[in-house]
Amino acid sequence: MPQPPASFGEIAGIRPGHEFRNRLELWGAGVHGQTQAGISARAGRGAESIVVSGGYEDDLDLGAWLLYTGKGGRSNESGRQVADQTLTGANLELARNQVLGLPVRVTRKVTENGLTFYRYGGLYRVASYWQEQGRSGHKIWRFRLELLPEEVLPAAEPASTALPGDLFSQAQEPALPYGAAPRQLTTTLRIVRDTAVSRAVKNLYAYRCQVCAVQLASPAGLYAEAAHVRPLGAPHHGPDVLGNVLCLCPNHHVLFDLGSFAVRNDFTLLGLNGKLTLHRRHGLEPHFLHYHREHYFHAPGAYPAEH
Amino acid sequence: MPQPPASFGEIAGIRPGHEFRNRLELWGAGVHGQTQAGISARAGRGAESIVVSGGYEDDLDLGAWLLYTGKGGRSNESGRQVADQTLTGANLELARNQVLGLPVRVTRKVTENGLTFYRYGGLYRVASYWQEQGRSGHKIWRFRLELLPEEVLPAAEPASTALPGDLFSQAQEPALPYGAAPRQLTTTLRIVRDTAVSRAVKNLYAYRCQVCAVQLASPAGLYAEAAHVRPLGAPHHGPDVLGNVLCLCPNHHVLFDLGSFAVRNDFTLLGLNGKLTLHRRHGLEPHFLHYHREHYFHAPGAYPAEH
Repeated sequence: MPQPPASFGEIAGIRPGHEFRNRLELWGAGVHGQTQAGISARAGRGAESIVVSGGYEDDLDLGAWLLYTGKGGRSNESGRQVADQTLTGANLELARNQVLGLPVRVTRKVTENGLTFYRYGGLYRVASYWQEQGRSGHKIWRFRLELLPEEVLPAAEPASTALPGDLFSQAQEPALPYGAAPRQLTTTLRIVRDTAVSRAVKNLYAYRCQVCAVQLASPAGLYAEAAHVRPLGAPHHGPDVLGNVLCLCPNHHVLFDLGSFAVRNDFTLLGLNGKLTLHRRHGLEPHFLHYHREHYFHAPGAYPAEH
Repeated sequence: MPQPPASFGEIAGIRPGHEFRNRLELWGAGVHGQTQAGISARAGRGAESIVVSGGYEDDLDLGAWLLYTGKGGRSNESGRQVADQTLTGANLELARNQVLGLPVRVTRKVTENGLTFYRYGGLYRVASYWQEQGRSGHKIWRFRLELLPEEVLPAAEPASTALPGDLFSQAQEPALPYGAAPRQLTTTLRIVRDTAVSRAVKNLYAYRCQVCAVQLASPAGLYAEAAHVRPLGAPHHGPDVLGNVLCLCPNHHVLFDLGSFAVRNDFTLLGLNGKLTLHRRHGLEPHFLHYHREHYFHAPGAYPAEH
């Protein structure tokens, strides 16, 4: 059975709570691209969806967040863990979702009133993943997934990687909020969301920072951040287009947002030495750089920086 | 009139919606430490609270987020902007809240049914700040404040900076959720929350990364992140204590969380060259480093890192 094209994010017309009689219906609706496997993933691109069926002894599902056990090492007969899992294949792809900021659709196998069916649960982010000894004594990979608040969901995207030229028309309207997932106490939340534009700029620079050229590597792939030059949202209303984003490491993203440095129209840096690395297909628009300079940049030393 | 001691975060017994007849009542309850000024701040420590009174022509208040205009440059007679504002004094302190991740209490002056009073609105974070030309043509500083979802609010803290030894008993329970602020479309959210522990570790290292010694400077102060070694929250349940946090730059925080590197019990690094800088008063506990190594660290090259 051929898989439908990979698609990350919401499926049009399918809201959380939508029910499906069986895996084939789920597959036909494009919610989960596998009829048996729990993880639907694309090699090197991340995981689009999972089905939580309660088959793993170490799974835990609290609705707003869940612990999902990776694939592999399980006996077909007993269903028990009989060997170590590895961070390869579908497990590696699910790990990539954290690094790339990709959402994953979660569907649950449910039994109610003697009926077994599948209920779509919404988009989750992979908040973290790690290895541990499962109850069986074998090594398992675990993924903590957290329900994404609906107002900040990325829009569903086409399967193919859009060309930079296509991105200028993809202005997105924020969805209406319906409330957010409860969270545990945290001191830092870094939620990086994937969009076609952020992916395009990171690919253009091979995940290297345009300021310092650092390339951060993790076991699940390279990590970089797309920084909007003129900010999104009110009152700035910068567009989510390639001409308005930079590929930066987290350090330079923080410094850019805090106004520690800015970029002149000739792409030399203000507040730092050097010049922005620029790809000929980037199309970075100087009027956005001007907006950032005017609003965010503060000349070093102009104000006291003691703390 | 002497100010009550500075206190960031919630005031015990004061919930959003709490009403006060006048500024003196507000002051007496400890919600706002000034009887006239709109910003209550401590030099070098940030702003604890603001009162939004609609006095500035460029203010905008949409409830879940608001644009707040800085202080200064306004005529006492006309109330109009007659000169440029500067990023100094109370304005600088409010800017520090963004850099330090400090929450600010927001109270609104309200007129309903012919009555004017003050209504506490809850804790907000300073999401960004910038300069622009106000309607008057003069330069103003603007602050975008966003309502913090209640479940991740930092607990109210004592006025004095706690000694490291005091922090081990400050385990915090997460509050119950009541829903989150609606947000505009964003691709990256970096919400850094201040706690006594995170502040202590950053001060111990003068905001220098314990791995690379970088010190990120912004116009409103130095920026660093407190990284929990054994993560907070289920299922890891690491404690929010000084012995379980590191002072890291954002780049090394990301790499640490993604398992690109770890720390041996002798504080040399795994996956990176070198050794962790360690302050003699830090009390970093090796069993937390062990937990992180076992669960998060992946030997470089053990898994494919293509993307």
